[in-house]
Amino acid sequence: MGKDSITVVKVGGGIVEEAASLDRLLRDFAAIEGFKLLVHGGGRSATRMAAAFGVETTMIDGRRVTDDDMLRVVTMVYGGMVNKNVVAGLQALGVDALGMTGADMDIIRSHRRPVTSSGVDYGWVGDVERVRGDALASLVRSGIVPVVAPLTHDGHGHLLNTNADTMAQAVATGLSPYFDVRLVYCFEKPGVLRDADDDASVIPLIDSALFERLKADGIVSGGMLPKLSNSFDALRGGVESVIITSAASLSDLSVGTRLIL
Amino acid sequence: MGKDSITVVKVGGGIVEEAASLDRLLRDFAAIEGFKLLVHGGGRSATRMAAAFGVETTMIDGRRVTDDDMLRVVTMVYGGMVNKNVVAGLQALGVDALGMTGADMDIIRSHRRPVTSSGVDYGWVGDVERVRGDALASLVRSGIVPVVAPLTHDGHGHLLNTNADTMAQAVATGLSPYFDVRLVYCFEKPGVLRDADDDASVIPLIDSALFERLKADGIVSGGMLPKLSNSFDALRGGVESVIITSAASLSDLSVGTRLIL
Repeated sequence: MGKDSITVVKVGGGIVEEAASLDRLLRDFAAIEGFKLLVHGGGRSATRMAAAFGVETTMIDGRRVTDDDMLRVVTMVYGGMVNKNVVAGLQALGVDALGMTGADMDIIRSHRRPVTSSGVDYGWVGDVERVRGDALASLVRSGIVPVVAPLTHDGHGHLLNTNADTMAQAVATGLSPYFDVRLVYCFEKPGVLRDADDDASVIPLIDSALFERLKADGIVSGGMLPKLSNSFDALRGGVESVIITSAASLSDLSVGTRLIL
Repeated sequence: MGKDSITVVKVGGGIVEEAASLDRLLRDFAAIEGFKLLVHGGGRSATRMAAAFGVETTMIDGRRVTDDDMLRVVTMVYGGMVNKNVVAGLQALGVDALGMTGADMDIIRSHRRPVTSSGVDYGWVGDVERVRGDALASLVRSGIVPVVAPLTHDGHGHLLNTNADTMAQAVATGLSPYFDVRLVYCFEKPGVLRDADDDASVIPLIDSALFERLKADGIVSGGMLPKLSNSFDALRGGVESVIITSAASLSDLSVGTRLIL
């Protein structure tokens, strides 16, 4: 017996914090047929809110250093402002959305990232340990559409700031025993580009061998590297297909970069 | 066949925003046997956060006037900071908590309060229209403990700031077709006091007739009036019992004021 399909969509903070792009994203997401789940980021608004509070933002290798004050900010921004506005927007479109962090129903547990060998302490940043795929699958089957904010918990009462791309990969992998999972990473570009300055240079298909070559040639670098690593982790973890595309192409997933093992 | 019982607890913002009182509240709440649900406020922290953002707080008759900026603040504070910390704290105690606003799963829908006859516009403040008691009851029966923040939505994409006492009453009433509901209002005092300056003057039992006399005599006034009105609304709506007590007495509900019709 074939499994049901589910689409797991990850959208970045830039898209969900602008009214116009959020509105379009919600409409495109609402139009996706069948079971679905949304993971959102919220990076830029956190930086702006932190500044409003006089909390300085420190990024190391693209990751936010999260001290006590910054944890409060991201909990407010990701778990409150962004998450609840997405939920209310989806409800207005007839989608039975339920906003969640990893702490809610204990769906994603993580541990605080250890201080690195070079002495970097990221603070309250969580590395995912496990996903309760069964609990998420039950929710989804009952008609609920989870909207997941990039926060997890350690099971001892601490919230942890967690990379949204990694959370989407972990959620997609955790759902793969229960569904045929399609994971869609939406971001600012129409896909993985051969030439960063040419939006028409989308690479339509990348397998593991090509990924290695693209890395070696320096064509894939920076923020795209962890996104692709997450994608291949998801595929190796049982996810059926991964697509990297622009939020504007969510309604037509033939556009973008498709990844295969 | 008798219905199962559920305890609906409402705690004010003052209790959930201090680490020590929050810790005790969570332990006492976790120790409550059987089905349960928590509704929390978050008033004072919202005022402080608003000030940090340069957003001025205006209260009229004890209700927060909620313009666009204030709505953002309460969404962050109630829906994010307070709600998610309560959820993570309960999970650490083995309670399968799920944080929710009225928008999540569309559990509580409200409409924006109309401008009053005297011309007061409370802004993005919601008056509750209906509760999806069936959806909440299903969640509760599946072992989940909802933790409800004082925010609702209008079904058209707008979040609305909503009085937590009223939400607790609405949730308790909405659950009453499915459960025998006990509603517990926790606040700073040990119950309804005959003498506001004497914590030993708790009135143990108040029925509708005594409530009218206490109002007429001015013994019940100020913030206690809407709390008692909400309590009697809950009883008339099918809630089995209402108790007004201090958060410190949550582990012993024989202390406090019991309300009957």
